[in-house]
Amino acid sequence: MSVIDDLRACFSGRLITDPVDSAPFLTDWRQSWTGTALAIAQPESTADVAAVVRWCAERDIPIVPQGGNTGLSGGAVPDTSGQSVILSLTRLNKIRSVDPVNDTMVVEAGCLLAAVQQAAEEADRLFPLSLAAEGSCTIGGNLSTNAGGTGVLRYGNARELCLGLEVVTAEGEIWNGLRALRKDNSGYDLRDLFIGAEGTLGIITAAVVKLFPRPAGKATAFVAVGSVDAALALFGTIVRRAGAALTAFELIAEPCLDAVLGHRPDLRRPVEAQAPWFLLIEISDLHDMAAARSTLETGLMAGFETGLVIDAALAETLEHAQRFWAIREAIGEAQGTLGKVLKHDISVPISAMPGFIRDTGSLLADRYPILHPTIFGHLGDGNLHYNFVVKASSMDAFEALRQSVSTIVHDRVAAHDGSIAAEHGIGILIREEAARLRSPVETRLMEALKAALDPKAIMNPGKLVLSGGAASGPRHPE
Amino acid sequence: MSVIDDLRACFSGRLITDPVDSAPFLTDWRQSWTGTALAIAQPESTADVAAVVRWCAERDIPIVPQGGNTGLSGGAVPDTSGQSVILSLTRLNKIRSVDPVNDTMVVEAGCLLAAVQQAAEEADRLFPLSLAAEGSCTIGGNLSTNAGGTGVLRYGNARELCLGLEVVTAEGEIWNGLRALRKDNSGYDLRDLFIGAEGTLGIITAAVVKLFPRPAGKATAFVAVGSVDAALALFGTIVRRAGAALTAFELIAEPCLDAVLGHRPDLRRPVEAQAPWFLLIEISDLHDMAAARSTLETGLMAGFETGLVIDAALAETLEHAQRFWAIREAIGEAQGTLGKVLKHDISVPISAMPGFIRDTGSLLADRYPILHPTIFGHLGDGNLHYNFVVKASSMDAFEALRQSVSTIVHDRVAAHDGSIAAEHGIGILIREEAARLRSPVETRLMEALKAALDPKAIMNPGKLVLSGGAASGPRHPE
Repeated sequence: MSVIDDLRACFSGRLITDPVDSAPFLTDWRQSWTGTALAIAQPESTADVAAVVRWCAERDIPIVPQGGNTGLSGGAVPDTSGQSVILSLTRLNKIRSVDPVNDTMVVEAGCLLAAVQQAAEEADRLFPLSLAAEGSCTIGGNLSTNAGGTGVLRYGNARELCLGLEVVTAEGEIWNGLRALRKDNSGYDLRDLFIGAEGTLGIITAAVVKLFPRPAGKATAFVAVGSVDAALALFGTIVRRAGAALTAFELIAEPCLDAVLGHRPDLRRPVEAQAPWFLLIEISDLHDMAAARSTLETGLMAGFETGLVIDAALAETLEHAQRFWAIREAIGEAQGTLGKVLKHDISVPISAMPGFIRDTGSLLADRYPILHPTIFGHLGDGNLHYNFVVKASSMDAFEALRQSVSTIVHDRVAAHDGSIAAEHGIGILIREEAARLRSPVETRLMEALKAALDPKAIMNPGKLVLSGGAASGPRHPE
Repeated sequence: MSVIDDLRACFSGRLITDPVDSAPFLTDWRQSWTGTALAIAQPESTADVAAVVRWCAERDIPIVPQGGNTGLSGGAVPDTSGQSVILSLTRLNKIRSVDPVNDTMVVEAGCLLAAVQQAAEEADRLFPLSLAAEGSCTIGGNLSTNAGGTGVLRYGNARELCLGLEVVTAEGEIWNGLRALRKDNSGYDLRDLFIGAEGTLGIITAAVVKLFPRPAGKATAFVAVGSVDAALALFGTIVRRAGAALTAFELIAEPCLDAVLGHRPDLRRPVEAQAPWFLLIEISDLHDMAAARSTLETGLMAGFETGLVIDAALAETLEHAQRFWAIREAIGEAQGTLGKVLKHDISVPISAMPGFIRDTGSLLADRYPILHPTIFGHLGDGNLHYNFVVKASSMDAFEALRQSVSTIVHDRVAAHDGSIAAEHGIGILIREEAARLRSPVETRLMEALKAALDPKAIMNPGKLVLSGGAASGPRHPE
């Protein structure tokens, strides 16, 4: 009996070994990394996930958990040894239950984020996690990477939207922590340890997620400001007025807007004024469009009076607002049309944002005049996609530039007590940099936890932590 | 050189060995437990905390971290061996910094909760954690027990109010995790592992806490309803309207109201109607008292029209609202005047609340007619102080009754997928019950974490987890 036949016999569900069928599971969607695997297991129940893990654990076979395979940091790609089993959760995709009185839902890890949003909507509730890949990423992946997105300012990261988990441990046991409680101190916080662990401590198979009332009214504005300081001051003005009603405060550098308008002729410039920075601001109200609009108008008026706002356009219709958002959402693609993109997903305290952008920008402009900044992000969360476009350089030259620039950027982030892994995870992409910047104490604590929960080091080895895993495949040039 | 002289020499700060001076540290404030200790160390800096821990770790001497010693579950009391060092954090009490732009503050563990609230207020911000002991409990204790209180519905537990920690590990190293970031996925979530761990994994020495805009307007109502089902339906009606503006939804059983009115002649009955259940409802608005009031009135009107509300009084003045809150806050003391109190701090999904109260209530009424229920709590959080008063029984009879009744209550909570440790922690009080109800998988995971982070089992042994610790002192009868 071959090892594959043996694996096939240990669980019910799909097992993929055919090279053509396997291919989509072996390369990440940005096509930065490609690995190989013994097989791809697609169990359809938690018990079958546990059976696969036990089978692997008995044989010391590494397991690479995978959701929608939409990650940006290579966390779901196997190495090139061909020794791993990919454990694909996409067939574990039931909405197990909806409790509109408790405002919670129990969903399986393989549910698409869009399906979770949809199930909430059918119960007249909001599941507020929202990000570009929502049509193809899974809630299990969102939780394993503690995904952010555009709803964090009001509703928090994936972590804050989860009350309980079901997890298959590295030994193939099922931990039922599916508690739907707002207050629970019945032991150590296992839930938050598995959230954001990128499958290196266990496999999330189901979760209790929080639901919220659906806002009935939204007011949206596109605003031109003269500096990040002005943007930050306006954020203060508006958040003091709106509080939890402020649901988005996005920062867009002028070159990003230009790139979008060049790439997408269907989209128009929302404000006439030229400015170095633009903001997309959204205020929501549970019942009343007029109330949201009035709060936003008052805030912007105060911004005009104090000279913070150069120009502003308020969306008159929902379709109008959607066009503002379309600009924001098109940046990722549009910047790629300008050249190769050197990306950083970083966060700093909001108060440090202007200083970080100013200092790091002038440092890099001096040293690397070839860099064309395309900075955007979630100002209200202190999270920037601190990107640069580079034209016409060879793959090797780009890779060398990327490493030098990223080291500088990451050091500047560290100097501001920030994070180099804000919402895209660590995966393979920045594991060395994360390890470099982590304090020795923190490294030791993390290694102790990894060894405690995954003593055989079979759970997604080589991701997130450097210790306890095989080397991973080389990075493809972008 | 005696062992005490040796300890005194290892750090700067106060060391207490005098029996009279030591006494307040050796008994919890409910006077349920008394232990003995080698000494009480009161370091004044994180480095000194680390020095004391290293000193203890080298000698395998158990450490009992202690904040304001206001805990309700015995988590800060040493055992009776006299072998432990109490590490009192109360002299580590600086507000290190306030960042009103980032809406965060760095506070040392020994700051009184009231001092943290006060520092926030001085920056024109709100630190929303609020509980009865706020004048004497410390923020370090609040975080170590993941305290709840009256602000959870809107702002979350202590856990949700903390962005970063500084911790002295069981080996006496200092982990600087004082990150003030809304998005950070730079490693495993160490922060949430130390929060709620009751000092059994390390000692929290400082924290980054979140600040919020201060609500300018509050509307408060005292409402009579006919059943817990009606209370829950009214909660749904109001939370759908108010969303994040709903800042309190407290449930009070009639006997609690009666007890308070009997005990506190200065307080008056807010509504004329007789009813089995009362609610204290508060809606806040950042700017506008009238807006808060209008939302509350509309919600209550809808409740009247659908027959959910029997009677309601809306506070006309701030002083009026404070009198409503005074009733809620007096329950704890007032119930004690009726007899011995048998207490449970439990949570269930909000949707399970009526069923839990009905079923458990009739089960207990049948079996123990001597029990007089004084139930109150945070309905909006699914958290009940599910208490019973018992008149005229001996200490031994009461203790026997307590054990039998608690077993039944805890089993009913477990049957509803609830928690027997909602906001008062586990400590000594319910560690056996928590262990009994914990699944074997969860027990193994917790033991693995404890062994990984506290390999010598010197951190607050015998609290929260059963493993790895010395036996603790006997419980005094209440």
